[in-house]
Amino acid sequence: MSIAGKLLVDVHTHVYLPRYTSLLRSRSTVPFIRSSTTPEGLPDDRLLILDHEPSGGRPVGPQYWDRDEKLKFMDKHNIDVSIVSTANPWLDFLPASQAHTLASELNNDLEEYCSTGPSTTDHKIKRLYGFGLLPLVPEITTSALLDIVHQIGQLPHLRGLIMGTRGIGKGLDDPALDPVWGAIEKAGLVVFLHPHYGVDASAWGDSVDNGHVLPLALGFPFETTTAATRLILSGVFDKFPALRLLLAHSGGALPVLSSRLASCIDHDPIVASRLKHDARYYIGKLYLDAVAYGPEELGYASEALSRAARYEHGSSVTGATDRSVGSKRMLFGTDHPFFPPLSASEKWASVTENLDAIGAVQGWAEEDKEGVRGGNAISLFNLTR
Amino acid sequence: MSIAGKLLVDVHTHVYLPRYTSLLRSRSTVPFIRSSTTPEGLPDDRLLILDHEPSGGRPVGPQYWDRDEKLKFMDKHNIDVSIVSTANPWLDFLPASQAHTLASELNNDLEEYCSTGPSTTDHKIKRLYGFGLLPLVPEITTSALLDIVHQIGQLPHLRGLIMGTRGIGKGLDDPALDPVWGAIEKAGLVVFLHPHYGVDASAWGDSVDNGHVLPLALGFPFETTTAATRLILSGVFDKFPALRLLLAHSGGALPVLSSRLASCIDHDPIVASRLKHDARYYIGKLYLDAVAYGPEELGYASEALSRAARYEHGSSVTGATDRSVGSKRMLFGTDHPFFPPLSASEKWASVTENLDAIGAVQGWAEEDKEGVRGGNAISLFNLTR
Repeated sequence: MSIAGKLLVDVHTHVYLPRYTSLLRSRSTVPFIRSSTTPEGLPDDRLLILDHEPSGGRPVGPQYWDRDEKLKFMDKHNIDVSIVSTANPWLDFLPASQAHTLASELNNDLEEYCSTGPSTTDHKIKRLYGFGLLPLVPEITTSALLDIVHQIGQLPHLRGLIMGTRGIGKGLDDPALDPVWGAIEKAGLVVFLHPHYGVDASAWGDSVDNGHVLPLALGFPFETTTAATRLILSGVFDKFPALRLLLAHSGGALPVLSSRLASCIDHDPIVASRLKHDARYYIGKLYLDAVAYGPEELGYASEALSRAARYEHGSSVTGATDRSVGSKRMLFGTDHPFFPPLSASEKWASVTENLDAIGAVQGWAEEDKEGVRGGNAISLFNLTR
Repeated sequence: MSIAGKLLVDVHTHVYLPRYTSLLRSRSTVPFIRSSTTPEGLPDDRLLILDHEPSGGRPVGPQYWDRDEKLKFMDKHNIDVSIVSTANPWLDFLPASQAHTLASELNNDLEEYCSTGPSTTDHKIKRLYGFGLLPLVPEITTSALLDIVHQIGQLPHLRGLIMGTRGIGKGLDDPALDPVWGAIEKAGLVVFLHPHYGVDASAWGDSVDNGHVLPLALGFPFETTTAATRLILSGVFDKFPALRLLLAHSGGALPVLSSRLASCIDHDPIVASRLKHDARYYIGKLYLDAVAYGPEELGYASEALSRAARYEHGSSVTGATDRSVGSKRMLFGTDHPFFPPLSASEKWASVTENLDAIGAVQGWAEEDKEGVRGGNAISLFNLTR
């Protein structure tokens, strides 16, 4: 494990597999890929995945679907292993039967993407693993969802599944999903919870041209925060205490709003009586990627994870919190291939900023930092098996 | 100043003055007060201020309008001085002419509320100061707004003004407000930015009964975060560098999302080129109340304030951040009379939790904590004048 402990593992890295890319190319409403040519005659493919996409969509190319491009990116940044996931919006927009079929096909595709790829040099860990997809759409049957959980559990290079926040139409706190959480827990799969919808765009106003900044910088983390909070309030973590949930973007605003959340719950006897623990206790059950772009943010997130244990039985304020404890639940990520650099030769800021941030967290020992860079992922996803 | 430095000053404490309460009682749509009697014949007044108010409104009584009740609350919790502000939703729902008249009347009322109240025992500081109100509603004229800024600046016990996030209908990043920011800056008034609307309620789902928890715990801070971010993106802090803005609830999620915000801006050349500094620099221009209910949250907020200086010219990650620097811009608050305890005899958790949190922040010296409890407010609001 001492060698494995030094691997750099990226847990937040996306792909549109070729089968999914074909689907996007076949469509003309969001989400879709629009192909045209520039005045110079060069191909110009644009990805439109959000409603009200500003500036005609973002450039999209082989970095989204070509495995060699993923490996080149990894090599350029010394990333040994990637746990790859389909990028948003997954299958959310499809009718149930198509979503079911495509989930199954894409999970098999992703297994092949990983299993036929290279291994790391020093040992038996592969360079690519995956998060599978569930057909989480309205009118899907529970048995279809359980089928796919079972499929993912059987595919040896898939170690979890990625999902958005809508569930089967009513959000993740929908009691209809309880059997799905139970099956995921039993299969030992990690759920990677990722935003797509943000919040209602009226929040962003129209006075000035802010591009994608508000929906990405604020809307995404607000959405993740809301979904995870609703899961806490619904009692999912009481019912499924071994469920392992990884939140994108370091959990958004949830860690920093968790004491306020606890206070609001304390003032509502109905909600308070429904939950076994103080809200801050549940934060400690989460895993957070280390995609927050600053050392102070990462350090704080590890504190919110660390302090959770003292809220198992009521609340208490004590002395210093040992950030090492929480660091064990945090994992390096890049958000590739989103946020490309402005020039092709550069290293990606999303990589260097997040690595620099990990390196600069106060209160993390060198071994904690190595854990966040890779060791924690090796354990969480059991990569040595 | 050594004695003044020991005062406990509450900068986040609300009131509905009698004139405003009468208005609420006269209405039958939100916001309003509904009076009825219990089956036992006792008066039962309920406050309804949010759309979709759960459970028929919250109990409302003299703690909202009676100055003696405010002083009793202060005495019970050893609060020496309160900087009182009208609670949301202020004048947002009124037609322009009525909002203008009422702002002027309520500012005079609040001046009298403060000036005829008691003084602290050891020196010339009063026990009550106030934030005035602007008639920020659609169709108000700029000259009416400037009138009222001028009025507030002339009333000796009003040291700032409270506002929501809608401006005159298009949010606070509306260029039409530039003359207002300029006048506020020139008058040296502190702007207390406070949420009311949250985000679109569809975010909260309908699966389980969560009472007020989601809109209050998440919606309020999301709204404040969005409004302050839009102000940053609009360049208001570049145009009015001496503007002093105090954010409710420790700035919500803004400090913890500020590195992500900076990253998103860096990837958008249009937005990036419009701003003079990295987003994290502007955080350091803010003041934050210390209403976050946990020591880790407060400590983090002070770090985000402290690190701002190193982002004045580009970004850089360095060593430990001195939290003392940021603590100077944080100020104790209670949110009284909201979040009352479940039994009348108790001390209010909103007071004790926030005081305990201040006392337990790692990296704050005793004098930093005294500053947050009162000394910073004495300086910011110039209470010794």
